Order: sequence, then structure tokens, then C-alpha cells
Amino acid sequence: GGVTSVINRSLLGIIKETKKELSNSRIYASDHGIEGLIKGKTPDITDISEDQLHSLKISPGAALGSSRHKIKLSEIPQISDNLNRHKIKTIYMIGGNDSAETGLLLNDHLDIQIIHIPKTIDNDLEETDHCPGYGSTARFISQASLGSGKDAWSMGDSSPITIIEVMGRDTGWLALASTLYKKDDFDPPHFIGIPEQSFDEDFFLFKIEESYRKFGYAVAVIAENIKTNNMPIGDTAKPWFTDDFGHEYYNSPSKYLSKQVSKRLNIRCRHESPGTIQRSLIDSVSTTDGNEAELVGKSAVTESLKGSSNIMITLIRESNDPYSVTTSTTSLDKIAGKVRKLPRDFYPSEDFLPSAKFIKYLNPLIGTPIDRINRLL
Amino acid sequence: GGVTSVINRSLLGIIKETKKELSNSRIYASDHGIEGLIKGKTPDITDISEDQLHSLKISPGAALGSSRHKIKLSEIPQISDNLNRHKIKTIYMIGGNDSAETGLLLNDHLDIQIIHIPKTIDNDLEETDHCPGYGSTARFISQASLGSGKDAWSMGDSSPITIIEVMGRDTGWLALASTLYKKDDFDPPHFIGIPEQSFDEDFFLFKIEESYRKFGYAVAVIAENIKTNNMPIGDTAKPWFTDDFGHEYYNSPSKYLSKQVSKRLNIRCRHESPGTIQRSLIDSVSTTDGNEAELVGKSAVTESLKGSSNIMITLIRESNDPYSVTTSTTSLDKIAGKVRKLPRDFYPSEDFLPSAKFIKYLNPLIGTPIDRINRLL
Repeated sequence: GGVTSVINRSLLGIIKETKKELSNSRIYASDHGIEGLIKGKTPDITDISEDQLHSLKISPGAALGSSRHKIKLSEIPQISDNLNRHKIKTIYMIGGNDSAETGLLLNDHLDIQIIHIPKTIDNDLEETDHCPGYGSTARFISQASLGSGKDAWSMGDSSPITIIEVMGRDTGWLALASTLYKKDDFDPPHFIGIPEQSFDEDFFLFKIEESYRKFGYAVAVIAENIKTNNMPIGDTAKPWFTDDFGHEYYNSPSKYLSKQVSKRLNIRCRHESPGTIQRSLIDSVSTTDGNEAELVGKSAVTESLKGSSNIMITLIRESNDPYSVTTSTTSLDKIAGKVRKLPRDFYPSEDFLPSAKFIKYLNPLIGTPIDRINRLL
Repeated sequence: GGVTSVINRSLLGIIKETKKELSNSRIYASDHGIEGLIKGKTPDITDISEDQLHSLKISPGAALGSSRHKIKLSEIPQISDNLNRHKIKTIYMIGGNDSAETGLLLNDHLDIQIIHIPKTIDNDLEETDHCPGYGSTARFISQASLGSGKDAWSMGDSSPITIIEVMGRDTGWLALASTLYKKDDFDPPHFIGIPEQSFDEDFFLFKIEESYRKFGYAVAVIAENIKTNNMPIGDTAKPWFTDDFGHEYYNSPSKYLSKQVSKRLNIRCRHESPGTIQRSLIDSVSTTDGNEAELVGKSAVTESLKGSSNIMITLIRESNDPYSVTTSTTSLDKIAGKVRKLPRDFYPSEDFLPSAKFIKYLNPLIGTPIDRINRLL
């Protein structure tokens, strides 16, 4: 699935722990996820250099490539052949709820140990306190909201309103990270659109106008998949491109909404889509997130040694002050195809002030926070 | 004009140096640039707290607000009254080539000392080696290009191509920063569009396809104002909004181009617009850039004490190894309304490999570089 800026830390954790605990084993990479196992592209990476290990520590994206391929039963014999050729006994999968489905299917048809390692910026996996990958993107978005707010306020009537469109699939975990530094009405964001709630265009326009009239600027943060009555909003209703698989691609909701704001207030309204930058900017990697990504990789090897299969490693928050986590496991069928939506008590207030509970949850995940900024005017 | 993540460091430099060298002077802020002087919104900020001084050190945007207002002669008497009321003798302006014009006009009509401090992410001011603000945004863009490349390669055929649209007004200084980590053909970006060159859509599509066929992915970085024969490209040719001042707003070229790529290759092509995030993300502030922004603020006070007027502070690169700069001055009329385009010998090669000369120029400006990343596959 989608990549993160710390997936490679999980791979690093697997390699380091395997070399330590299973010094006679070989480690094979599957090039582009399950596709490598189907095509027989499984290079031996046991002896990669120190330089490459260090690269895994700092590199965004997936050093082994990613895949959105859904395996077909007809591909099982090829996978089986490739596993047997190298005497592979354990498959470590780093992924989300789609990968978990692949893991279950492999286990149903092959004599193989499946250990799943959570990975998603969307933070939408069940059974774990949070997902490696989320903290770093959340860090980026919290600063994007704060910084774009400072920018929009500064620009005044020449460019006072900004809409930031963020990722998150069908959940608002990432959009809500934009509230991390919001202490009062003045601070950004002034509107947050999450997929868990039906989007109300009139309310959106009302809140933006209210903030603009009161403070001279406004910032809205919307998740990419906000919908009104389960339909894409505005002129995003028709796909602009349909690929070979029948997947449809829609116009960005932020562009449509910025037009509506400009029409209503007769001012410039920017719309910004950081896209894959939000999940790959090295400067915004959360140290906590990076360390935990490596931790779940190591734990996966520990679980493999215990003989576990069909499990996913989970993160358990032991305490908030000081923040500490341990790892545990859950069975794959509790993850596969399931989506963890935002809990009700994490929703922001009607004025989009963050819930204290959510901020307490988010704070330790983003790594070193920035200092509090006091306004001069 | 547009803000940066280090303008406030220049203000901090002015305040610190004034308190040190002119302890009997008062410091007034002009709220939203020249607009504050016209409207009489000029609060005394001499005694701001240590907390607020620290906030200036870390806060993006403009703590005093910015302005795109062009002064009219009819506003001169109001400005004069407000200057006289507080016995203001010196105006420090932090801005680009438009602000320099304002400075010249003020000096023509008032008995006032004008000291201009360079500020622009576009890096388009004459007479200075580079402009405070540029290094931090260049840092962001260099990592955005690298990270989005890692992401696009990882995603393979589910999302192999990304177009990133960056700022820079009528110059390609920022777009070119995307080449900082490009060592060979494989590395991103695979196409760069700069306003100094007429955009050729066929060549763009050819280069993207070439990279996609060869490496399985492609990244293009285009400046917001690329044009073909001086006309906005594709369906950006008609403005989608015209404001009260007659300023026209166009569709983003990246969106049009991503459609063309998708049509040609029948694959998904993302387009990303980091917008104001590129000039305000705290994590990407270059330490060099921040320090130099403070330095030019301090130098402005030193020049003021010498009695200079109608000047801009400039940065002079003394050496590259080790990197060191000093400040100097230039007359405002050499800056006002002028645009410093990319020198020919900074242009990338036909294959968009960066010129060694440009990389040598850029390297020290972005602060601590990231470690070299080695590919695993």
C-alpha cells in the first residue's frame, strides 16, 4: 500500500534482529511486495553493507518497493515455488489492512509463517494504540497548519485563506493532527473536514467567513475523502480519469471548495495538496515514530522465534508521562479489511478546538514538539 | 510581499541590535507593512518580552504582517503625520523588489532614512549572493523532490508519476533546488520546468515517459509560472477568478499536465502543490538561512548608525570552504523592480542533471544536508 517515511526502519529492525538471533538464516527481499514473490524477484539481502543499513534508517519510501496487487489463487503455485526454492519459512509483511488480507490468504494455502508489521500514515488499523508512519505525517501536518496559518494571517487581504487537503483514506486521524497547536479561536485551523462526518458545504463556508471577518484570515484542513451524503463533493462528482482496473480519480475537493470561498468572499483562497510530500519529508520524521517502526520490526522476529503465525505486532501505550510503549500481538483476522475510525471523544468541538483527549494521545507521537509561539501583534 | 520562515529573524536582529546600540531609541512596528504607517497602526514594541523575542526566532510568517499595497501619493501626508507623531527617523523595510520601490518613493517625498533588508524565497534580488528566505524553502523542495521520488518508485504502477509545483515567481531558483540530491539519471527529478525557458509540452511528456519506461517512475518539478511562448499553458489559459484589483488567478499548470500524462500513459499521475507550506514549515528551516536573516537585520542597524539611506543590505559570499558570508550594501534603485534570473551556467543539463556550479552555490544555503542514501534494490 502507501508508503511512509519510516517503513524502512521496520525493515532495518527485522534485519538487525535476524542477524543477531538467527545468524544462520538468510534474508530475502520480495521486490515490490507480493509481486516479487509471484515473479521470483527475491534477492538475498542478508549481507547488505553498513552503508545500506544506515540508508534504511534515514530513507523515506519503501526500499523494497510497495504493491497494491491483489493476489489471485492462480498465483499461489508460483509463490509456493519461489518460497520453496529459497527454503523460506517466514514471511514478514509490513503493511496495513489490505496487506493483512493477503497474509491471511497466503496462510490458508501455504505452509508458511506470517508475521505482520503495522505500517500506515492513516492510523486506521484496529488493535494497536497507533501505527508506525502516522506520527511523522501527523508532525508534518501539525506544522503545515500552524505555518500556513501564520502565512495567511501575514498576507492579509492579498491571500488570507488557505485550504489544505491531507491524506487519511476513510479516517480523519491525519486531518485532526492539524489541531495540535490550536489553543484558541484565533489559531488555525478554523475548519476541519473528516470522513467520519458528512461534509456540510454551507457550514464550511460559514466557518471560513466567520474566521476571516473576525481575525482577517482562515485555514481549513480537509481530508481527501470527505463526502456529503456518501457522494464526492461539488464538481468532484465526476471522475477525470479511469484506469485499466476501473479505479476512478476525482478532482480534489480543496480546489472546488477554494472556488466557492473565492466566489462568496471575492478574495483569493489558496488550496494546497502536500500529497506524497507529507509522507516522505525527511525533516519531519518523528524520532518516536522512527524508533517505534524499528521496534515493531524487531518484535516481529522475536514472535517468529516463538513460532507465532497469522499475527500482527501491536503497540501498547503503557503510560503517557513519561511516554512509554511495549509491543504485543493480535490475530490477523482482527485487522484484515477493518478500519479504525476516530473515536467520538477524539472529535473536535463545534468550533474545531481539539479535544484534550486527542491531543494527549497525539502529543508523544510527533517527536520533539516545537516551542510555543507567542503573537507579537 | 510573500512571507518566509525566517523574516522574523531579521526583525529579531533589528530589535536586538537597536537595544544594544541605541538604548534611548524607541522601536515601532508598522502593522502589515506600509498599511500600518498609512492607517496609524504603529504599536511601540521596544519593550517586548523575552518570550516574544524567542517567538520571533522560531516563528514562520511575518509577526508584523505583510502587505501588497502600492502606496499612492495621496497617502504620503498620512504617513508623514504618523512618522512625525512618534519622531520616527529610520524605516527598516524587510522585503523584495516591490518593497524596494515603496522605499524609493517614500524617500523621494519624506525626510526619512530608508534601510532595506532583503527577504524572498524566490531569490530574485539583484546585487546579493542570495536572499534570506531562499535557503529554507530550497531545503524543503530538495527533500520534497527526493522523498516524492522514493515514494513514486516504491508505488510502482499504482502511482508512479508525480508533478510537484513550486513557487519562485518569474525565476527557477526554487525549482532548481529540487536537483540537490540528483546524482544520476535514476534520481529525481526527471524534468524541471523553469520560467527562464519556454515550456515545451511534447518534450515534457517525452522525458516523463522515458523515465517511466526506464526506471518505473518519474518526478517532474515545475515552477508555478512556466509558460509556452509567454502564455499560460494548457487549460490554465483562462483565469478562474478575477479580484477587485483586476488580478487574475489561473488553474495550476501541474493539474493540467498531470491529466496529459495520465491520458498518454494511462496511469495515475499525482500533482502536488505544497504552496505556503514550502515557505513556512518549521522543520525545514535552514540554520544558515535563519542565522543570515538575523545577520542582515543587525547589519541594517549598523548602516543606520552610519547615516546611510536608500540602501539594501546584501550578502557577499567570502568563501565556500569553509562557507562564510559578510554583509555589504547596495543602492535601492539597483533592486527596485528588477528581477535576477538564473544565470545560464546554473541551468541543468538536457537530462536535468544539475550543473556543478549551481550545486556548489546551493549546498551551504540549505543548512545541514541529509546523509547520502544508497539504494537497496
